[in-house]
Amino acid sequence: MSASPAQEIVTAAVIVIGDEILSGRTKDKNIGFLADYMTAIGIDLREVRIVPDELPRIVEAINVLRLRCDYVFTTGGIGPTHDDVTADAVAAAFEAPVVEDERILAMMKERYAEGELTPGRRRMARVPKGADLIDNPVSGLPGFHIGNVFVMAGVPSVMQAMFDGLAPRLATGRKMLSKTIEAHRPEGIVATPLGEIQDAHPGTAIGSYPYFDGEIFSTRIVIRARDADLLEEAAADVEKMLEGLAKNDKTS
Amino acid sequence: MSASPAQEIVTAAVIVIGDEILSGRTKDKNIGFLADYMTAIGIDLREVRIVPDELPRIVEAINVLRLRCDYVFTTGGIGPTHDDVTADAVAAAFEAPVVEDERILAMMKERYAEGELTPGRRRMARVPKGADLIDNPVSGLPGFHIGNVFVMAGVPSVMQAMFDGLAPRLATGRKMLSKTIEAHRPEGIVATPLGEIQDAHPGTAIGSYPYFDGEIFSTRIVIRARDADLLEEAAADVEKMLEGLAKNDKTS
Repeated sequence: MSASPAQEIVTAAVIVIGDEILSGRTKDKNIGFLADYMTAIGIDLREVRIVPDELPRIVEAINVLRLRCDYVFTTGGIGPTHDDVTADAVAAAFEAPVVEDERILAMMKERYAEGELTPGRRRMARVPKGADLIDNPVSGLPGFHIGNVFVMAGVPSVMQAMFDGLAPRLATGRKMLSKTIEAHRPEGIVATPLGEIQDAHPGTAIGSYPYFDGEIFSTRIVIRARDADLLEEAAADVEKMLEGLAKNDKTS
Repeated sequence: MSASPAQEIVTAAVIVIGDEILSGRTKDKNIGFLADYMTAIGIDLREVRIVPDELPRIVEAINVLRLRCDYVFTTGGIGPTHDDVTADAVAAAFEAPVVEDERILAMMKERYAEGELTPGRRRMARVPKGADLIDNPVSGLPGFHIGNVFVMAGVPSVMQAMFDGLAPRLATGRKMLSKTIEAHRPEGIVATPLGEIQDAHPGTAIGSYPYFDGEIFSTRIVIRARDADLLEEAAADVEKMLEGLAKNDKTS
């Protein structure tokens, strides 16, 4: 795996492959899972792309993102049917031939009687030459990885089990810490002072998320930093700013 | 709006802008809504990108996708705070200056007392020069569009209201029809005959979606086509194929 464990920041991209997501027929459940998981273990998810089951579009996404990020994770398109072209796309991206993997074939032969090993199922043994396998404890047939690209199933339960198995082997950076502060007022009121606090606190990322709680428009302020001291210093300034606004409410 | 109403196929891309989606803190609810809506009105969603609140990354996504698709829809990053850079990014992509829109300012002046028109709120009046506005019936402040790029809010209720207003003005292609057939057997069994049926039916797209129903692995086969006759012909062949498999079940 390519990222060095000593790196401060480890980055990743996710490619979701499948016409069914783009048509709305299936609602993606993998992006949110992977985003949460990566944040928890210290990997920065930098970009997500959802692309159709078309070889050139998948190749393009892989080749841009594998150079830009430490890891690329794909979900979907590794089934037995004609529209499952992920293995071919990854092979094309790495300019590697596609081969029938002996390890996967052996698993299949254990699992299926001879008549049941259909050409479709056999298709699922195809991987780019040189790929390693990713365990699939749910339904048996593995994903694979080559270079920094990890190819997982699209079915959420299978994808999650694959990623659970992978995660301990991934290099991770210093974890991003975060603190959420409730502003109790609309974003437009806190926006400008927040921008000033952001400028005064390099090494932190201050975001604000407006929401309507059914009665008032309010805002959650989220401060993120890898350094706990920097986080607390920025949070203290945000609290001070909110106290100042509260005093104004009372006196005006 | 750029697409001609006579086009057979109208394409779109969606760009979701926001660190909070990539960190997992917020789960996206806009992609599924837009995918469903576009399918229903006859627009092909061709790609989705989720990018961070960083100007160069947003500009890159806009400039690639606006050339590739008839429409680009963005969600998020149009609030009043320092990390809301979508207006600047769209302006940069179109090499247009950012201006304070007089129409938005007028709305704001009606809405807010003079002291309440904070610099943060005033930031939300900034749009690329030449942009038109997108109505926001929920919280008042509009989105905007320039060329074939439509900039909407990230808050789902606001985004949905904006898109509802936009949709009747969009060019749409011939609607994609679809038919779902339950295979009652694993994908590995139907994969190869499905591939042959796909080859025999140009003008259709046949997908198969495996799922575990709690007892058996089964597969939904989805046939899509713009032409109703082509759809029915392919569906008839799929039914025939499944009947053949069922006969085999009984005789073996």
